[in-house]
Amino acid sequence: VTGSWAGPGLLSAARRVEDNRCVPGSESLDPAIAARLKRTADGLVAAIVREHGSGDVLMLAWMDDEALHRTLTTGRATYWSRSRGEYWVKGATSGHYQYVKKVALDCDGDALLITVEQVGAACHTGEHTCFHTELELEVAR
Amino acid sequence: VTGSWAGPGLLSAARRVEDNRCVPGSESLDPAIAARLKRTADGLVAAIVREHGSGDVLMLAWMDDEALHRTLTTGRATYWSRSRGEYWVKGATSGHYQYVKKVALDCDGDALLITVEQVGAACHTGEHTCFHTELELEVAR
Repeated sequence: VTGSWAGPGLLSAARRVEDNRCVPGSESLDPAIAARLKRTADGLVAAIVREHGSGDVLMLAWMDDEALHRTLTTGRATYWSRSRGEYWVKGATSGHYQYVKKVALDCDGDALLITVEQVGAACHTGEHTCFHTELELEVAR
Repeated sequence: VTGSWAGPGLLSAARRVEDNRCVPGSESLDPAIAARLKRTADGLVAAIVREHGSGDVLMLAWMDDEALHRTLTTGRATYWSRSRGEYWVKGATSGHYQYVKKVALDCDGDALLITVEQVGAACHTGEHTCFHTELELEVAR
């Protein structure tokens, strides 16, 4: 699925019909899954990305219903970029794709855990994960 | 630190002086850390909670500056509850405390990775983690 998108959510089904580049199979997120999501005011759910095998937590990103639908149907992790206001197939520019092995939803529906095979570095800085700044604990443990 | 709090952020320093139950040491989050945080419109940063040893991703919660300060200075994971509108020491009612081993900030300052020793179950349902609903991938991999 290509093309630029005006915004997350409701527009996407209409757009997809309009530009006639339908993906095979279901057209939008399974309503049973959609009903379980508890979205932020701007329609998003947090997506924690973990590396298959190592279990390393790589990054945090955001998904709306359409991004989750694309992730589940294409097998490539696809997010909603809050800063750029567009869908974002991780790796589309860097080559550092994330091939999805497993997706799990949390108990209250506001977070996803995405297990991926990570090509190259997950972080745009070139680091393996985005969590490379350790904060000092002020208590002795 | 106990007591009920009117809201996240700016009120907390004044409150702490008012009710005279100061914790020893620094009074608020290190300004160098605060300057790196990129908060949501309601002043929050996502906190991914991972279990020390197993590496399991246990849950996602939210922190404002004061919750992060308390987490770093008390060694007990402390969040901002969006549903209850109050600070929340994980385990204060259940006994399922999270003893903090490590805190890391991500590259763009909008997510924290908290590594903890988890007492009992992390999820209020009694499950080990909150991510116990697997979603079906519609692509063969």
